[in-house]
Amino acid sequence: MSEIRYDPLQDRWVIIAPDRSARPSDYGEATGAGSMDPCPFCPGKEHLTPPELWAIREPGSHPNGPGWSVRVIPNLFPALSRENGGAESRIGILRGRGGYGAHEVIIESPRHGDGLADLSRQHLAGVLAAFRIRLRVLQQDPRLKYALIFKNHRDRAGASLAHPHSQLIATPVIPQSIRRKLEAARRHLHRTGRCLVCSLLQAERDRKIRVIREEAGFIALSPHAARFPFEIFIAPVAHAHDFSVATDRQLENLAEVLQDMLQRLRRAADDPPYNFFLNTSPFSSLSLRGKDASRRRAPVFHWHLEILPRQTAVAGFEWGSGFHINTASPEDCAERLRRARDR
Amino acid sequence: MSEIRYDPLQDRWVIIAPDRSARPSDYGEATGAGSMDPCPFCPGKEHLTPPELWAIREPGSHPNGPGWSVRVIPNLFPALSRENGGAESRIGILRGRGGYGAHEVIIESPRHGDGLADLSRQHLAGVLAAFRIRLRVLQQDPRLKYALIFKNHRDRAGASLAHPHSQLIATPVIPQSIRRKLEAARRHLHRTGRCLVCSLLQAERDRKIRVIREEAGFIALSPHAARFPFEIFIAPVAHAHDFSVATDRQLENLAEVLQDMLQRLRRAADDPPYNFFLNTSPFSSLSLRGKDASRRRAPVFHWHLEILPRQTAVAGFEWGSGFHINTASPEDCAERLRRARDR
Repeated sequence: MSEIRYDPLQDRWVIIAPDRSARPSDYGEATGAGSMDPCPFCPGKEHLTPPELWAIREPGSHPNGPGWSVRVIPNLFPALSRENGGAESRIGILRGRGGYGAHEVIIESPRHGDGLADLSRQHLAGVLAAFRIRLRVLQQDPRLKYALIFKNHRDRAGASLAHPHSQLIATPVIPQSIRRKLEAARRHLHRTGRCLVCSLLQAERDRKIRVIREEAGFIALSPHAARFPFEIFIAPVAHAHDFSVATDRQLENLAEVLQDMLQRLRRAADDPPYNFFLNTSPFSSLSLRGKDASRRRAPVFHWHLEILPRQTAVAGFEWGSGFHINTASPEDCAERLRRARDR
Repeated sequence: MSEIRYDPLQDRWVIIAPDRSARPSDYGEATGAGSMDPCPFCPGKEHLTPPELWAIREPGSHPNGPGWSVRVIPNLFPALSRENGGAESRIGILRGRGGYGAHEVIIESPRHGDGLADLSRQHLAGVLAAFRIRLRVLQQDPRLKYALIFKNHRDRAGASLAHPHSQLIATPVIPQSIRRKLEAARRHLHRTGRCLVCSLLQAERDRKIRVIREEAGFIALSPHAARFPFEIFIAPVAHAHDFSVATDRQLENLAEVLQDMLQRLRRAADDPPYNFFLNTSPFSSLSLRGKDASRRRAPVFHWHLEILPRQTAVAGFEWGSGFHINTASPEDCAERLRRARDR
């Protein structure tokens, strides 16, 4: 049983999930827990995971057996769960609610040693299709307001299992990072009549120095105010607020650009640990807080994917101020990523 | 030469400081740089640092020689510097400014192997007095809007040198964490007529389950919405917005509580790496943004110190959502910290 608590001073939510401290890890030193042998994400070990939610399967194979290339399962140690109640609690200024939500694992490949950068383009498009279908399913639940899809690559980036996988956590509130991006987008729209991300992309396309690649409707760039060395921002060039309505063709094109960026990153930045996450529109605009927020529609959002390499430490200054110190020039990183190709 | 850049999508600032990638480290593996031998923070090696800004010295000792117990110096690899210009740049939506500011190091002890928890209470009060005097000096510069004092304990928490030290970074803008805390405090004041932190402390004192210790005007507690296991929040019980006007007696009492908490943390959480930071009022309320912000005075702030143990990873979910997942119950952590005393 987990709980969601609100911090009024920082205007942010925290999930308190003590059960997750018991989860196993392949990186024993990092967590103190035992390693996973056999790996529960490998083919033939499907009985070690909860029943699958979705999979791409060979003809004739059966759910929860081998024969899959991409497989989505509930997280065995969920941060949030639809089995939790969502009752709100309030003791004076201290607010919380039950840990209602969803926490899923997208197993990206049956091969334990694969990297996301190594998959075929078609296979990676299948992983993106898993993201899309899970968003479509979860947004049917009126109690859920958002789903974040993310990946932790290697223990230094927070992974606890080595088998290639990404995750999805759906929340009954709009996370504050998304809320702040929405608010910024609304302010910009009000001031200029334009989408904020469209304006940012246009500014970068005009200048070119931070653009890594633009192809088939997608652009990848080193952000002007990147927080980390070799940070990468990927978005559709044409305005699109909702990843869950992307076409198969768009997913294939995104797979091409994402894979290319992961390969360039491996070469230019010495195969770094990284996180990536997908920021798409909230499920419903009706739940937005604030009086002028409630009148505007979520299509103000422009979905995007951020890759954050995790070679540098986040320390007291960052935690205490929200500032980041980036020890690499985004222009230099863009140049090195443009030059790096490993095929 | 560093630069400060604004990210309009996340409404936050980033310092781009490529020169800092050249700084040395005692933790070679973490950064790839060489280790420091001899240690530039040890007595007798004062010539290896920039000239000192302030020190507590034995009678008869001389600046930039041995005989000090606490010593403040400019950072040799500053993220921000008053030697940088502060000119603003703007290319369409992409805004930046020169890296004007200050970056200082507070060497907490002449003994290389000391921990902050090991210092005498009087010595630790001297470290806090160094924080106070540097805030007083820097707030005289009208171009500076804020100074964050923070500590990175051990490499896992972002330290690059092992000799005990904390740091100060002064910025020409109010960092967004501070701005958001100020905005939350103003909303609460407007709604209730009370200080937000005063209200939070009162709620915790009423409930008691998350209070670790209250003594001599200071309270230490496990926050209701803690982000990390064993996170600790320390504040004066009576409203106080500006750390730089704290009395000697208050610094002694804070030193007692801070040292006690660091000792309890060492015992209860197996001597974790940690960050701490001090959040005090911005230097001036006149620079606050927003139309209703400009009318209110900064005393709405209530200064506090946060200790964030860094045993658990911050991963894709946190970066993509702003949510945190805490795998420990704050009530349980408070109980374990209440029981832990190592003297």
